Amino acid sequence: MATDTPMQLGMIGLGRMGANIVRRLMRDGHRCVVYDLNESAVKELEGEGAVGASSLEDFVARLERPRAAWLMLPAAVVQSTLDQLVELLDPDDAVIDGGNSYYRDDITRSKQLAPRRMHYLDCGTSGGVWGLERGYCLMIGGEPEPVARLDPIFRSIAPGAGSAEPTPNRRADGSASDGYLHCGPSGAGHFVKMVHNGIEYGMMAAIAEGLSIIEHADAGLRDRAVDAETAPLREPEAYQYQIDVGEVAEVWRRGSVVGSWLVDLTADALARSPRLEEFTGRVSDSGEGRWTVLAAVDEGVPAAVITTALTERFESRGLGEFADRLLSAMRSEFGGHAEKRSQP
Amino acid sequence: MATDTPMQLGMIGLGRMGANIVRRLMRDGHRCVVYDLNESAVKELEGEGAVGASSLEDFVARLERPRAAWLMLPAAVVQSTLDQLVELLDPDDAVIDGGNSYYRDDITRSKQLAPRRMHYLDCGTSGGVWGLERGYCLMIGGEPEPVARLDPIFRSIAPGAGSAEPTPNRRADGSASDGYLHCGPSGAGHFVKMVHNGIEYGMMAAIAEGLSIIEHADAGLRDRAVDAETAPLREPEAYQYQIDVGEVAEVWRRGSVVGSWLVDLTADALARSPRLEEFTGRVSDSGEGRWTVLAAVDEGVPAAVITTALTERFESRGLGEFADRLLSAMRSEFGGHAEKRSQP
Amino acid sequence: MATDTPMQLGMIGLGRMGANIVRRLMRDGHRCVVYDLNESAVKELEGEGAVGASSLEDFVARLERPRAAWLMLPAAVVQSTLDQLVELLDPDDAVIDGGNSYYRDDITRSKQLAPRRMHYLDCGTSGGVWGLERGYCLMIGGEPEPVARLDPIFRSIAPGAGSAEPTPNRRADGSASDGYLHCGPSGAGHFVKMVHNGIEYGMMAAIAEGLSIIEHADAGLRDRAVDAETAPLREPEAYQYQIDVGEVAEVWRRGSVVGSWLVDLTADALARSPRLEEFTGRVSDSGEGRWTVLAAVDEGVPAAVITTALTERFESRGLGEFADRLLSAMRSEFGGHAEKRSQP
Amino acid sequence: MATDTPMQLGMIGLGRMGANIVRRLMRDGHRCVVYDLNESAVKELEGEGAVGASSLEDFVARLERPRAAWLMLPAAVVQSTLDQLVELLDPDDAVIDGGNSYYRDDITRSKQLAPRRMHYLDCGTSGGVWGLERGYCLMIGGEPEPVARLDPIFRSIAPGAGSAEPTPNRRADGSASDGYLHCGPSGAGHFVKMVHNGIEYGMMAAIAEGLSIIEHADAGLRDRAVDAETAPLREPEAYQYQIDVGEVAEVWRRGSVVGSWLVDLTADALARSPRLEEFTGRVSDSGEGRWTVLAAVDEGVPAAVITTALTERFESRGLGEFADRLLSAMRSEFGGHAEKRSQP
Repeated sequence: MATDTPMQLGMIGLGRMGANIVRRLMRDGHRCVVYDLNESAVKELEGEGAVGASSLEDFVARLERPRAAWLMLPAAVVQSTLDQLVELLDPDDAVIDGGNSYYRDDITRSKQLAPRRMHYLDCGTSGGVWGLERGYCLMIGGEPEPVARLDPIFRSIAPGAGSAEPTPNRRADGSASDGYLHCGPSGAGHFVKMVHNGIEYGMMAAIAEGLSIIEHADAGLRDRAVDAETAPLREPEAYQYQIDVGEVAEVWRRGSVVGSWLVDLTADALARSPRLEEFTGRVSDSGEGRWTVLAAVDEGVPAAVITTALTERFESRGLGEFADRLLSAMRSEFGGHAEKRSQP
Repeated sequence: MATDTPMQLGMIGLGRMGANIVRRLMRDGHRCVVYDLNESAVKELEGEGAVGASSLEDFVARLERPRAAWLMLPAAVVQSTLDQLVELLDPDDAVIDGGNSYYRDDITRSKQLAPRRMHYLDCGTSGGVWGLERGYCLMIGGEPEPVARLDPIFRSIAPGAGSAEPTPNRRADGSASDGYLHCGPSGAGHFVKMVHNGIEYGMMAAIAEGLSIIEHADAGLRDRAVDAETAPLREPEAYQYQIDVGEVAEVWRRGSVVGSWLVDLTADALARSPRLEEFTGRVSDSGEGRWTVLAAVDEGVPAAVITTALTERFESRGLGEFADRLLSAMRSEFGGHAEKRSQP
Repeated sequence: MATDTPMQLGMIGLGRMGANIVRRLMRDGHRCVVYDLNESAVKELEGEGAVGASSLEDFVARLERPRAAWLMLPAAVVQSTLDQLVELLDPDDAVIDGGNSYYRDDITRSKQLAPRRMHYLDCGTSGGVWGLERGYCLMIGGEPEPVARLDPIFRSIAPGAGSAEPTPNRRADGSASDGYLHCGPSGAGHFVKMVHNGIEYGMMAAIAEGLSIIEHADAGLRDRAVDAETAPLREPEAYQYQIDVGEVAEVWRRGSVVGSWLVDLTADALARSPRLEEFTGRVSDSGEGRWTVLAAVDEGVPAAVITTALTERFESRGLGEFADRLLSAMRSEFGGHAEKRSQP
Repeated sequence: MATDTPMQLGMIGLGRMGANIVRRLMRDGHRCVVYDLNESAVKELEGEGAVGASSLEDFVARLERPRAAWLMLPAAVVQSTLDQLVELLDPDDAVIDGGNSYYRDDITRSKQLAPRRMHYLDCGTSGGVWGLERGYCLMIGGEPEPVARLDPIFRSIAPGAGSAEPTPNRRADGSASDGYLHCGPSGAGHFVKMVHNGIEYGMMAAIAEGLSIIEHADAGLRDRAVDAETAPLREPEAYQYQIDVGEVAEVWRRGSVVGSWLVDLTADALARSPRLEEFTGRVSDSGEGRWTVLAAVDEGVPAAVITTALTERFESRGLGEFADRLLSAMRSEFGGHAEKRSQP
């Protein structure tokens, strides 16, 4: 289904997300100019119909005014790229940062561009490796005029209304039901995306903890050390279940209250690898969860679940080790408790 | 779509869930005998094609052997109903407890029925007020034979495979992809349902906390008391957003990682009532969350997110008040801090 | 200082705590009969003035009626010892369980002894390896009469009023200011001791976390990976401190709000071993913390800090691994995030 | 006991802490110049031997070079006072900020003074209303030379070695065992004090939660609503205790592992007011707890207990209300659960 209002967009950064956004736009009839330090990524999209650029200067030259340049870059290189870009752009041009920048940087950057009458939009983009097919959920911040101007672009990238049932009590206006939303002034888009990721941490942790409780429902079948350092399992007969957690995730996909895309993905991961042995359990965190906690603390909003989910990730990477050694040392001091070295 | 293998089921307890399960079964061609202390509930379903019973004895008499009697009752009256029922049933008959019983009671009850060669199945049932249309997710525990015998019943109650996309990496067998699963021996069904609800607590809390952080993104626009008892907001310029949280929930329904039925429902609730002023925020908990935490502790599985979500519900009902008064008392003792009476 | 009212006490279980309680009683002029399966432990205390027993029968025979028999045994062998003992004792005799039994077992056991008109007292005992010198804090449950009868024994074991400054606003009665307290009927003593240990978990965790934050105040001096999987440290110049945490613990021992025996012990442990390299950080939990959480959940009392401290111990022993692998699997599914294998 | 090396100190800010530090210094033979906007506070200390100043200019004029000016002011007015003061001071003069400033401000301020060759020291000061008698625990940051110069001042303010038993394994040097410590460069003192307060939050919460669990050990004696919205108490016979929590706090003061100044103060508060009815349970937080959490997140150190303690304070002030309303709304959406309005 081609858009009624074809536009042109420039994309800098042709990683998986950047490239797939370009593909999704071209499918809808938009024209794209693409640039990446990796020339083969440029070549590949040229082969699919995009206009390739050989340098930032070339990229800017190939865009029609008022230009729209979307950055899909690691947070660490956004600022330096932007600094070069603003020297090449003209008034009324717009830069969209679609990556995971900290929303406070958006506020700074929009102030940087304002005296040149250029526009800076922040666009939190969710969808991951599935966005090409499903579309990307877009959370947008910035001035109303350039957001409105780029509406056909956002509409094509977003999933569209058909991708979910209408919300029964909702009035029939606004773009949120199409999967994109202008959240407010500069930074508002990345603020909402940041919190989205914080929620993601909490939901993921809830699912993982619950499935782990089910996985360990056989605790009464396992031997447990009998000594003063180990809490006894009082009722082993209540923990005699060997339950296939992958099938549990699968059954929850239909009709249950916890039904969600994350449960879908969990079912898929467990179908592929029932014990997940290819993973070590060192869980990264890439910024948004931390920033969400900082915002909650600044606002004085209790967010114990999200915070705890973040903390669990720190624990998973061994970052609690010094504190744990202190606990063992205290136990040794007051109780003469020797540390147990073996599981569990 | 009628079932190929019509069966008969008796239902005791015709509240919303019990009645809708009966309706869903009859739609699929099954015959139902229904009983409730509330005679008008029986009458209503008689009008829709069910066979009404006037007493437990009558209920049992109207069922063909081997009988199948489904209990959809408050946890508090399951045991007394079961005690009466077993005096009326015969060997090979099966009782299915579809409510939210504690899984440990299932173990006890199946042992109670075993010497009579009757079968006791526990069936965790998720779906709430939407189950009639969406189908109910069923988590079943008990002996294999009666579970297999009742397969057409479970299949009709469950949502069916078409209600979600297939899981890409999953083999094409088993009933989980139809929305019902035999989880293991007695208690396994309610165990899985219990943890399901624990996960539900955690997911709900993550969503609620996150939307609350967005709702309070205007903290820099509000006055804050300036005194030694109040932490200052160091960068009020970073909290100047007034964001429509209902529209945020709506946009997350499409393409985002947090997409889920709970976000769907949240969007609907906020569309109906943007400030949720009809709620006070006293959040009940009805057992499963607590039991999930007890299981995690018994198993030694860290479940900090689910536990914290439960604790937040306790807090919401003022159950932390004595501890909080102790904190104020300590602060008064060591620092002479007077308690602040006004918000926040 | 000898007691005014010398009594006789029998002690079963001559581990560190049992033996030191005997020593403390004998210092005060009480007579002790001692028994242990380990004959050399009996011999050692005979050399210090106790009366040794060669069997349970012999132990009972050497006690004057009404007898007082104190059990200082691992929780796992209390019941079997008690079962043998009750066959040998007479009406009016009293058994005191000074170990870390679950308070619910106390309720059962006191009912077991009641028909024989024997008394069962539960006595939570805190003090660890330091009790011989400092005295033991005693939390006692059981009937008033035998508790009153044994007052001179409890008084001698406890630290005594001189071990801390009087509480300014407290009336001058009751034994709590001497370091022992009759808390209520059977189980009340171990209930209070159980919660005491739960609080201990929370206080220990707070101290350990805080010192770990100080230990890592040099985060800005360390290299951090620069990639999409690692949250950047935005202001490394704010984390340039290399602080001696042992000296910090030492300074907090005097005049600070966190001054406590646990900080004293922490300062000592760090003075002996600044990096605590002899510990791995696998922190055991021995039952009371778990039971405290179960009680909080049953009562509906929010106890997030104590619960979290327990969970952190589970994490320290790797019990969160399956959940963590699930998180990595989900991240891989939706974002194509590869797990990072190296620190942090 | 007079100091061997009497010095002169100027104090700006004669609230309870500032005035008592002056008194403690004069007791030890130091000379003090005092200034406050509140003239009667100046007068009062003049009556006790201090030299009063009528203005900042007068204050500076009365100090001998190199001057030492201690600020004991609310965090909000430190910067403006410092800005005036630096215009009046000379090279080599030192300013000590003894309040609860954010350590990052210390870094900025020391850079502000450096070009004038003036010294800025940050001094975290713990002791509250009890410092005059007990002494104040001092955590100091700044350059080595001015810290060394002011050693006699810090020594007199601190509690001194006699206020606690020596740490057995500690070498006999350094000032930490006297109750003051040079923690590192600018900000290090307030960093350590900040974390100290974070630990304080955690310890307080552990104590308060535990005592609340004991206070509610009578849950089995209370009526509980019987309905689908209320989790049943399965074993009411296990919660039949009515325990005097004030006496429990008192008994823990002697010989127990949780012995601490906070437990001392809790015992005192409960002795004065067993039900703490004069408190509402709205617990303030004044910055350090929040900053501790921010530091933990920046460092990637898991600090779930301290974070949870902070979150509980937010909850105590009703700041979770919007999130709680969202939870009630979701429950209403999926389960038709009506919110319960009455306790608990």
